[in-house]
Amino acid sequence: MKVDHIRPQDIENTSMQIIREELAQMGKEIPAELAPVVMRVIHTTADFEYADTMAFSPCAIEKAREAIRSGARIVTDTNMALAGVNKKALAKWGGETICFMADPEVAEEASARGITRAAVSMERAAALDGPTIFAIGNAPTALLTLRELIDTKGYKPALIIGVPVGFVNVVNAKEQIMETQIPWIVNRGRKGGSGVAAAICNAILYGM
Amino acid sequence: MKVDHIRPQDIENTSMQIIREELAQMGKEIPAELAPVVMRVIHTTADFEYADTMAFSPCAIEKAREAIRSGARIVTDTNMALAGVNKKALAKWGGETICFMADPEVAEEASARGITRAAVSMERAAALDGPTIFAIGNAPTALLTLRELIDTKGYKPALIIGVPVGFVNVVNAKEQIMETQIPWIVNRGRKGGSGVAAAICNAILYGM
Repeated sequence: MKVDHIRPQDIENTSMQIIREELAQMGKEIPAELAPVVMRVIHTTADFEYADTMAFSPCAIEKAREAIRSGARIVTDTNMALAGVNKKALAKWGGETICFMADPEVAEEASARGITRAAVSMERAAALDGPTIFAIGNAPTALLTLRELIDTKGYKPALIIGVPVGFVNVVNAKEQIMETQIPWIVNRGRKGGSGVAAAICNAILYGM
Repeated sequence: MKVDHIRPQDIENTSMQIIREELAQMGKEIPAELAPVVMRVIHTTADFEYADTMAFSPCAIEKAREAIRSGARIVTDTNMALAGVNKKALAKWGGETICFMADPEVAEEASARGITRAAVSMERAAALDGPTIFAIGNAPTALLTLRELIDTKGYKPALIIGVPVGFVNVVNAKEQIMETQIPWIVNRGRKGGSGVAAAICNAILYGM
């Protein structure tokens, strides 16, 4: 048995063609401007349910790209999502990726205040100058903290990607973000994850 | 609106209880020794389909734990999976996590030989002394290379976690691993991913 010599780009193109065909067979129609994001999420999960559950505020992708063109950073709530975002593609526009979750000071502050590290991480990110995109694939408390900062401090992130996965507080936290006037991309329901958050960032970057 | 003060461990316990109840409602019975792994994958994906598709060679989990007790390393095929494995839990037994994918020498060799970086990464890992667990969530060519090393060089990994996600070559690559006499944990079909690979590693570690 010999390992085939396959070019990664060919595999991706073939995969996207299969996804396109199967979506058509299922009768799922995705607006052209959203399709690259939805399809990359399906590519990352092999789960076609995302075609039904992903939701976007008006012009969310275009607004995210404008923010990236002006040097927006991407803040994640896990080191996994951080590892998954294409840093070279973001650096081309001057942006960088940040995750505060493993910072010992964040852990200390969270413990002292009796809140989650994700909540403290969001506060730290919100204190930074310049446009910020949040890619949240894990912690519903990250989304709830962002909602609180938006409501009480007038904080305006460039985009919130709200795709935590889970069984407790996740559905509600996503709805809290969908009620804001901030640009958002959310996967309704329980599904999501760090890989999904990174895939959405990369789909936005690759279409620029 | 105030962010609730929720303890992560409470959320996880509640989530696992919900998963247990819903599995029971669906009539899905999972053998007790496999349940911690299958349930952690469902916890990571919110996708109950894994209860039907995950497969294990005889005593795979117990053999993996024996290997970890003797200091096994965990080799991943993505930096995302690397970021997701609980390194503290592994270090307690003397093991470390490794991923060769971002090594510039690996990229050069792959390009020169016209094979994937994942294939070169597996060869490098297989050349290391001592027990090795492979956690493959992305590249089918990683699995095909391991199969080749097993067949032609008599290579004996301690465990292969074969859960690449995707639409091209993925299903076959998983089957190639299931035909070996090496301990394996595989998710049949298209689904999987770096998060799933890390979740399986962590479930093994947390049960020790």
